[in-house]
Amino acid sequence: MSDKHLSTQFDAELSGISTRVLEMGGLVEAQVAQAIYALTNFSGETASQVIAQEERVNQMEVEIDRDLSTIIARRQPTARDLRLLIAISKTIGNLERVGDEAARIARTVQRLINTGVSSRMRLPVADVSFEATLATEQLRKTLDAFARLDVKKAVEVLKQDNQIDQEFDGLMRKLITYMMEDPRTISASIDLVFVAKAIERVGDHAKNLAEQIIYIVKGTDVRHIPMESVESVLK
Amino acid sequence: MSDKHLSTQFDAELSGISTRVLEMGGLVEAQVAQAIYALTNFSGETASQVIAQEERVNQMEVEIDRDLSTIIARRQPTARDLRLLIAISKTIGNLERVGDEAARIARTVQRLINTGVSSRMRLPVADVSFEATLATEQLRKTLDAFARLDVKKAVEVLKQDNQIDQEFDGLMRKLITYMMEDPRTISASIDLVFVAKAIERVGDHAKNLAEQIIYIVKGTDVRHIPMESVESVLK
Repeated sequence: MSDKHLSTQFDAELSGISTRVLEMGGLVEAQVAQAIYALTNFSGETASQVIAQEERVNQMEVEIDRDLSTIIARRQPTARDLRLLIAISKTIGNLERVGDEAARIARTVQRLINTGVSSRMRLPVADVSFEATLATEQLRKTLDAFARLDVKKAVEVLKQDNQIDQEFDGLMRKLITYMMEDPRTISASIDLVFVAKAIERVGDHAKNLAEQIIYIVKGTDVRHIPMESVESVLK
Repeated sequence: MSDKHLSTQFDAELSGISTRVLEMGGLVEAQVAQAIYALTNFSGETASQVIAQEERVNQMEVEIDRDLSTIIARRQPTARDLRLLIAISKTIGNLERVGDEAARIARTVQRLINTGVSSRMRLPVADVSFEATLATEQLRKTLDAFARLDVKKAVEVLKQDNQIDQEFDGLMRKLITYMMEDPRTISASIDLVFVAKAIERVGDHAKNLAEQIIYIVKGTDVRHIPMESVESVLK
């Protein structure tokens, strides 16, 4: 319905914005991966790099949002294009929150290093790292789905979200046992609890992004539809 | 600049939406207060009520978002009005997340009751309750600021956010001591750790809302500006 409206100029602007959203997505994805690398290797240097990138991500969010507003104001887009532009605005808000989680993890790593905990005790960081792999895979899949506006892939992301939740629950049980066996590890373990939570949130943000992709392509708001009904709603 | 554009019809639609945003805000504010009541009194009934309201809040988000899209598509609003409409869309996203945090707290209360923990041990719920009072006050202040588009009040909210963070940090130290003194309390204490975190997030959402109000009124994006510079930027 909006083909007539889609001037070449508007298309070019939109494609420029999409490229930058993907660039921002790639950046926060790398931030998460680096934050986990910093954790498993107790690398203060990598943690500092992750924190340093936070400002760049924030800046990208502000810039893309400003450009979106300019496009909307100037182009008077149709309903369909508007849906896309507003969804992009929500998308970058989500990506920025992923960057926040990565920075949170990195700050925790710095604290574990500074308090000497990382050299004093063997923390179960490998399990956290597995949860993180699941979450970054979800994030990557979502960014691929965004690049190709691929609804099928977005639905896959929605379906797999509970894997991360299960991993998180298992991790909590493990950490609680670890703390009970040696109460001296409690303080450091609580830090890992928050890292695990941050990773779970990355998964949640990936899920939100997937929902926005579905909204962009199909115009259907699946945010609060139970997973088992999503596919039939989209038929 | 947009006075000419603001038809009476558009004004009426906008005012209708604002009323519903405030209604949604009141609902999630009550949800948080009830979730904390459920915690401090270990009331399973109140916890169930909070969880039951989650769907209503979700529904409101979807409905208001749909109406916003309709208004934008039909009215072709000016840049200033658009800024308002997009900010409202982000606002309700934030309110929905507050509702999520309340439901999370309520589910934790249910678990504490179902596992018999609440009757077996004296958990330090009073401290959590104090943090919650700070967060709900911030939320209330933000909704007031939204109702009157009061930038001064919104800036106050930004300034007070670190109070909740400090309270959260103190609470963490207290819970860690509590767990170390009696490792049998670890599992239940981790639940309280997440409740405390959920409350801190409510404070964060209030802060985000305050930033959106400033953006609506001033057109200045203060999301990533350091607190000490915000007031001078708004002058």
